[in-house]
Amino acid sequence: MNSNREARDEDYLPPQPPVKGVVSARISPSGGLDVLSRNEVALLRDVSASGLHGLLRRCALAVLTSGSESDDPRSTLERYPDFDIQVLQQDRGIKLELRHAPAQAFVDGQIIRGINELLVAVVRDIVYASTSLAAGAFDLDDSVGITHAVFEILRNARILRPHADPNLVVCWGGHSIARAEYDYTKQVGYQLGLRGLDICTGCGPGAMKGPMKGATIAHAKQRRHHNRYIGITEPGIIAAESPNPIVNHLVIMPDIEKRLEAFVRIGHGIIVFPGGVGTAEEIFYLLGLLLHPDNTGQNLPLILTGPRESAAYFEQIDRFLCLALGAGIARHYRIIIDDAQAVAKAMSKGVDRVREQRLDNKDAFFFNWSLNVPFAYQQPFQPTHAAMAALRLHRDRPAHELAADLRRAFSGIVAGNVKEEGMRAIESDGPYAISGEPEIMRALDAMLQAFVAQHRMKLPGGKGYQPCYRITTDG
Amino acid sequence: MNSNREARDEDYLPPQPPVKGVVSARISPSGGLDVLSRNEVALLRDVSASGLHGLLRRCALAVLTSGSESDDPRSTLERYPDFDIQVLQQDRGIKLELRHAPAQAFVDGQIIRGINELLVAVVRDIVYASTSLAAGAFDLDDSVGITHAVFEILRNARILRPHADPNLVVCWGGHSIARAEYDYTKQVGYQLGLRGLDICTGCGPGAMKGPMKGATIAHAKQRRHHNRYIGITEPGIIAAESPNPIVNHLVIMPDIEKRLEAFVRIGHGIIVFPGGVGTAEEIFYLLGLLLHPDNTGQNLPLILTGPRESAAYFEQIDRFLCLALGAGIARHYRIIIDDAQAVAKAMSKGVDRVREQRLDNKDAFFFNWSLNVPFAYQQPFQPTHAAMAALRLHRDRPAHELAADLRRAFSGIVAGNVKEEGMRAIESDGPYAISGEPEIMRALDAMLQAFVAQHRMKLPGGKGYQPCYRITTDG
Amino acid sequence: MNSNREARDEDYLPPQPPVKGVVSARISPSGGLDVLSRNEVALLRDVSASGLHGLLRRCALAVLTSGSESDDPRSTLERYPDFDIQVLQQDRGIKLELRHAPAQAFVDGQIIRGINELLVAVVRDIVYASTSLAAGAFDLDDSVGITHAVFEILRNARILRPHADPNLVVCWGGHSIARAEYDYTKQVGYQLGLRGLDICTGCGPGAMKGPMKGATIAHAKQRRHHNRYIGITEPGIIAAESPNPIVNHLVIMPDIEKRLEAFVRIGHGIIVFPGGVGTAEEIFYLLGLLLHPDNTGQNLPLILTGPRESAAYFEQIDRFLCLALGAGIARHYRIIIDDAQAVAKAMSKGVDRVREQRLDNKDAFFFNWSLNVPFAYQQPFQPTHAAMAALRLHRDRPAHELAADLRRAFSGIVAGNVKEEGMRAIESDGPYAISGEPEIMRALDAMLQAFVAQHRMKLPGGKGYQPCYRITTDG
Amino acid sequence: MNSNREARDEDYLPPQPPVKGVVSARISPSGGLDVLSRNEVALLRDVSASGLHGLLRRCALAVLTSGSESDDPRSTLERYPDFDIQVLQQDRGIKLELRHAPAQAFVDGQIIRGINELLVAVVRDIVYASTSLAAGAFDLDDSVGITHAVFEILRNARILRPHADPNLVVCWGGHSIARAEYDYTKQVGYQLGLRGLDICTGCGPGAMKGPMKGATIAHAKQRRHHNRYIGITEPGIIAAESPNPIVNHLVIMPDIEKRLEAFVRIGHGIIVFPGGVGTAEEIFYLLGLLLHPDNTGQNLPLILTGPRESAAYFEQIDRFLCLALGAGIARHYRIIIDDAQAVAKAMSKGVDRVREQRLDNKDAFFFNWSLNVPFAYQQPFQPTHAAMAALRLHRDRPAHELAADLRRAFSGIVAGNVKEEGMRAIESDGPYAISGEPEIMRALDAMLQAFVAQHRMKLPGGKGYQPCYRITTDG
Repeated sequence: MNSNREARDEDYLPPQPPVKGVVSARISPSGGLDVLSRNEVALLRDVSASGLHGLLRRCALAVLTSGSESDDPRSTLERYPDFDIQVLQQDRGIKLELRHAPAQAFVDGQIIRGINELLVAVVRDIVYASTSLAAGAFDLDDSVGITHAVFEILRNARILRPHADPNLVVCWGGHSIARAEYDYTKQVGYQLGLRGLDICTGCGPGAMKGPMKGATIAHAKQRRHHNRYIGITEPGIIAAESPNPIVNHLVIMPDIEKRLEAFVRIGHGIIVFPGGVGTAEEIFYLLGLLLHPDNTGQNLPLILTGPRESAAYFEQIDRFLCLALGAGIARHYRIIIDDAQAVAKAMSKGVDRVREQRLDNKDAFFFNWSLNVPFAYQQPFQPTHAAMAALRLHRDRPAHELAADLRRAFSGIVAGNVKEEGMRAIESDGPYAISGEPEIMRALDAMLQAFVAQHRMKLPGGKGYQPCYRITTDG
Repeated sequence: MNSNREARDEDYLPPQPPVKGVVSARISPSGGLDVLSRNEVALLRDVSASGLHGLLRRCALAVLTSGSESDDPRSTLERYPDFDIQVLQQDRGIKLELRHAPAQAFVDGQIIRGINELLVAVVRDIVYASTSLAAGAFDLDDSVGITHAVFEILRNARILRPHADPNLVVCWGGHSIARAEYDYTKQVGYQLGLRGLDICTGCGPGAMKGPMKGATIAHAKQRRHHNRYIGITEPGIIAAESPNPIVNHLVIMPDIEKRLEAFVRIGHGIIVFPGGVGTAEEIFYLLGLLLHPDNTGQNLPLILTGPRESAAYFEQIDRFLCLALGAGIARHYRIIIDDAQAVAKAMSKGVDRVREQRLDNKDAFFFNWSLNVPFAYQQPFQPTHAAMAALRLHRDRPAHELAADLRRAFSGIVAGNVKEEGMRAIESDGPYAISGEPEIMRALDAMLQAFVAQHRMKLPGGKGYQPCYRITTDG
Repeated sequence: MNSNREARDEDYLPPQPPVKGVVSARISPSGGLDVLSRNEVALLRDVSASGLHGLLRRCALAVLTSGSESDDPRSTLERYPDFDIQVLQQDRGIKLELRHAPAQAFVDGQIIRGINELLVAVVRDIVYASTSLAAGAFDLDDSVGITHAVFEILRNARILRPHADPNLVVCWGGHSIARAEYDYTKQVGYQLGLRGLDICTGCGPGAMKGPMKGATIAHAKQRRHHNRYIGITEPGIIAAESPNPIVNHLVIMPDIEKRLEAFVRIGHGIIVFPGGVGTAEEIFYLLGLLLHPDNTGQNLPLILTGPRESAAYFEQIDRFLCLALGAGIARHYRIIIDDAQAVAKAMSKGVDRVREQRLDNKDAFFFNWSLNVPFAYQQPFQPTHAAMAALRLHRDRPAHELAADLRRAFSGIVAGNVKEEGMRAIESDGPYAISGEPEIMRALDAMLQAFVAQHRMKLPGGKGYQPCYRITTDG
Repeated sequence: MNSNREARDEDYLPPQPPVKGVVSARISPSGGLDVLSRNEVALLRDVSASGLHGLLRRCALAVLTSGSESDDPRSTLERYPDFDIQVLQQDRGIKLELRHAPAQAFVDGQIIRGINELLVAVVRDIVYASTSLAAGAFDLDDSVGITHAVFEILRNARILRPHADPNLVVCWGGHSIARAEYDYTKQVGYQLGLRGLDICTGCGPGAMKGPMKGATIAHAKQRRHHNRYIGITEPGIIAAESPNPIVNHLVIMPDIEKRLEAFVRIGHGIIVFPGGVGTAEEIFYLLGLLLHPDNTGQNLPLILTGPRESAAYFEQIDRFLCLALGAGIARHYRIIIDDAQAVAKAMSKGVDRVREQRLDNKDAFFFNWSLNVPFAYQQPFQPTHAAMAALRLHRDRPAHELAADLRRAFSGIVAGNVKEEGMRAIESDGPYAISGEPEIMRALDAMLQAFVAQHRMKLPGGKGYQPCYRITTDG
């Protein structure tokens, strides 16, 4: 069963013996790390509860085990119990002191430069979030304030390029997908790359890696340098979906809601590959936004696509969307099956239209200020058992509100599946209860069971998938 | 009398008819301007008292009249009464809308690119100071907080280069100096440039321009690209000492004390050319710091130099320093007369020693964290008549405290000479009274009168120099 | 059987519908094409027998069908009978006018930039060979003269980099290899790339493409730009082994002997993957050189490697080498089975030793002048039936002479298999007769039959492989 | 008298003590030197009469004494009798071994990088001329062959840029000019530089240096990198007019005629500053070409310009041109007095028209193939006493033929003034006799005497100028 799954470099390279052991090294951060102040270095060294050291250590380890097989974040920390990272202020800037770090991040004792750059991004974003944001520079109780926080974090990470034409395609999809699906994501990435488009994903394996790999080869053929393979992650997910070294711009957003907002504000088009509940969460987040009355004029090309093998999957999604949100929803997306070239051509044209609209409206290319992301979409959703039980999955509400609650339902299931905190909650209190209008709930249940059957819930581990939820119907 | 003075490009190019008239244009900011958020654009457009628009307009005009003849900041604003600048958010970033701007900043209707970049720096620093600093991100009632503010402004301006070897020479000296002195500053800059050293000055004319010009030719001969000609200014002085377009890194510090701290924290060596009271202020600031007990181990090469014609000037300074601060002060500087090559060789060696010391102490190359700048040196000095009268210029105090008050005395005279606010105060209330120990005051009086006689107080205008101070002795 | 063969991008991307049709376009040559003189443009336009137009058209078509499935050069010309290319002199340099060109070289009507650059290389080398060489600038009747011609062509193609440390690994091996073998070549390329090594191959599919692909991913992970993927080909082979667009430096040497000399003079180490007769030719060429008394002190790391599946293949080669050239031959190479990392580490160390030797001997890094390539190895071998019959495959000769004749035998078989001229000769006159010492001939026959059985002779076409030779024994 | 002359950096920097002494060093050639073959290195080391070593030594010394005061080539060789240069083949390319080289080319023992690059150009061009040209690659008995030789030398020197818009202004004028004239050339260069124009001159002091210096400052203000300061010289003149290190592209053409052809084929406009006979030679060369019937449609902006002080000089030139070549000649040039901005604006527009014409005619931007340079203009003129006496300076000939002979007359006088061979001939056989139609000869005599009176003939040495010619009238 494992053989047709994708989570490692093995799709590309024949199986290699895993690199074992640990390495200790002092490395010079490469590329783009601004000088840190003494305050910031002190903050990063602070191992007390209030300090950032624990967060730094966890995110750094995720980067250093880039491409590893497991999606259980705890196992990584257990495999490298002695791993530590310290930031040192030195004559020519800072040094990173790594102790007992995974050997796979090194070649003959030298750290792989791409991984070095990802470490730099980790340090940068943790420092920034803890200084500017935590220092109260933004009003996080307000929609505009949150949007500015998203903007500032992206700006600080040098993600916003003022002089570039729109060319950024966000690719969503599962981290645990079938071989044919993974191959197809590469093919689409290849066709996008041939057309000069850059890629942004959630930076894990599967559908988050394939498009970048395909684009890498196409960009090389087009002799395109300065390509952007942007990975946007957050502290809760980075350990489970460790960034591939192809990612050359990594941003760690403070939480999943800011991560989603970052995707939709910087992307000029979105492609959804097959996935599981995480992908469903993303689809409902986006469609909820597009259904919002304030966003009527928004122009954001959205394509759902997969290989021939995934045709049934998208039919099911399509049906559920039309059932839950009304048939009109279908005009917001296009489904293309098994035609990577058609996807790339359609996306290329869609991005051109985005460009024209931005020019007409004198809007920035690099950040979609005009999109309204309501406060309800920005507030971190804490998937407690109570919060999950309180979701109102009924069609008597405005579609964009129902979409928002469906998004939260999927978000909770993701947490229960792969996030440390969620997994602990499930372990102690049993599965989440999710309830709602019977027709919706039946359709939801069918879809989730299909995901399980298709191994879309989690990377196959030792035992079968244990659902972290149970569906009930209201009334 | 005018013919042997230097304040324009005429030293380099034979007299040219002044470019007259005004130009209105919408320009794309070039190089390095980070994308602005909507908040920031709104802030810059806010013309109300609390907004930044007035400050922006004033600084922008200084940049656009780069190299103009007058050092009276009001006359520039009077010459271009209709000048305006607006920041527009646009599809590919921001645009700057200039109306009735000085024609001399343009060539055939196109803005000179160097001036464009300086405008960008103006916008960047005004935005940064008003957001991060004004938003209370720093504790400005504390020495460490102020140092961090200095650090952050420089970091935001991309002045701090983590991976570069020490090579930054700060050049201080007058903006109104004799022809032979100006030529000498170019010669020193040329010799520094041949040795791969970069230049940092206060970015006005005279001794602040000459070293950059000399270095430009030397860097071209050495095929050295990515040179740094850093100009550090502040809102009160920028209008009087408008940055030359050779400056390719401009920083506007919020006040004169942060500007001085920036010089001593980023410079790896300091050269003082002949100047007037501003130069004296800088000398006393620096020596006061080096005399502080906490800075005993500091290593900062300091060379006072000028052509043969300036020998007497430096003898007078030397005598006054030894009189006021004790003979031991002389070991902190070296006086070299009329030997540009010797200056450059000595500075090159001094910078090497700085490098070694930083390596030994694991200190950063790009920012001298280890220098102690006491809070008294950091607090903005408001040269009111009362504050000037309250200075205690007596040798019964520790030398570094006397040095601090002498620095303030000179600072006040600079304000009375060329800063808008100071000039107004003098116009309404008459000259400042400065008093102190008789021997010191007599020596000070003699030195200031010599400055007047040597035309070091102000650019020669229509009328003779009217002192903005009067010296009295205590007791 | 086809399914486990590699000749297209399909190993990397799942099968795609072939791009059909033709495109006509006028393109601007990108990158590195020196301006042509009027003479040279005229020469290229000259369609008469003496002109270069036919050669240009043939090579250009090979580049434009990069990655196509067939290795029969005639079929390409037959598939695009109306294809034409013209060089136009224009205001900003030259333009290439393509008519009825294969659509696969274009994306949405735009030529792929990598293919554009390969076209430029084709024009450049054809012009250079026909002007400087044909004009008698070199004495081609003399060993030193030929070496200078090789040097000049490489220099003109900007292949020789004076300031770079040795890092160029030449990879030889078959264009038609099994899937596992191909995957292994990628894995080795990946490990080489992680260690900062560049790749040079014969620029066709199979073992000539895999290492470049692996290195591309590794170079991206190491953020290594300015990588070199050098392809060295010759007019007779380019059509059958069309360059992959990963190749970013293409050189067309005038004939196969200069191509071989180019490999051994610029490579700092050589890896041999499984292949067929072409690979055998390369092995005998190299070992013949290393056996030459003048080359005793030469240091050129040589590694024969393949996956587990190829172990038997290399055992057979090893046995034949020891039989024909004596057991001592084995100290010139190392066989590593199924360990890409060990190959890369050994090569990396070997290249370091080459560097040290060159430094010791004050030899150039970029061209191994000190290697003696005897005139007999440089003379083009015309594989006529007579020439093939005249080879003396006996062990009563010095080993390096026997090696030379064995090299010629393999060269003839390559020609009979895939070169236009050779195929015609076989079609009209039947297979070549090759004869020699019985023990050698039997071993040779066994080895060649194994190659046939392993599909190493030719890409599987419609019918089975028809040998272009027959082995007889002398006496 | 010396004080208002320009031949050193002293115009820019106040007088400095001359750098004395010699330095021996082994240097790595920087930038752009292609790898040399063993043949070429051997050629350069060959000290015998037929070798190139003497030429290399002479040209290298000129580059190393860049900016020296004398224009007597022999004195330089006499001042550095032990100077030697050797080319060594080394591991990373070649090294240049300098022995007893002028110390002024070094800073603290390190060679100035700009001078290093000029040395590289010297080696490159000497090698190229002696291999490709001397090897008979060009038919130098034919006009087309010579033009191709010019093209090839420029191409080999990487002077021809295929993708750049026309922007190259050739500046001609004297190497020994008055201070006000020199300052004016800088001012014009500054205005040209502000408009993005590059500069090409004969690479000596005076009018050949000023425009480059002015452009350097303007290019820095415009943040223009990759500027071209092209110096075109020839072996006979390089010693007398040593290239300034501002020159970043140096080409040594084999003789003065190819140098002139290079100027008119690559320049997109020509500015003539005041000068002496060399400048007159250039004016007659160019006007002779433009008068040729085949060049009727040519479009080459030509501006004669100088400061107010030079007005009389240009009136005299203008009168002589109209007298000798007819009044219609005046439409081929424009005289602008004392208005650098007007010169730059006119030239900028003229270059735009050249661009349009080339586009219309599909001509290359980088080399004016369409200009007809007759064989008579290409043949090296050997100014023997006999050849000078044989010139036919009569108006009964077509104007372009008379212009050609006037050009030769001036060429001979240049040789007699500053070239080694010419000076020897004058020393042994007395002044050249030049004769012709009385009215022309009288006007010529008056003009030459005015040149002498204005010190335009030679840099002021110890004694007054001794004419190397005498004018007689025919019949």
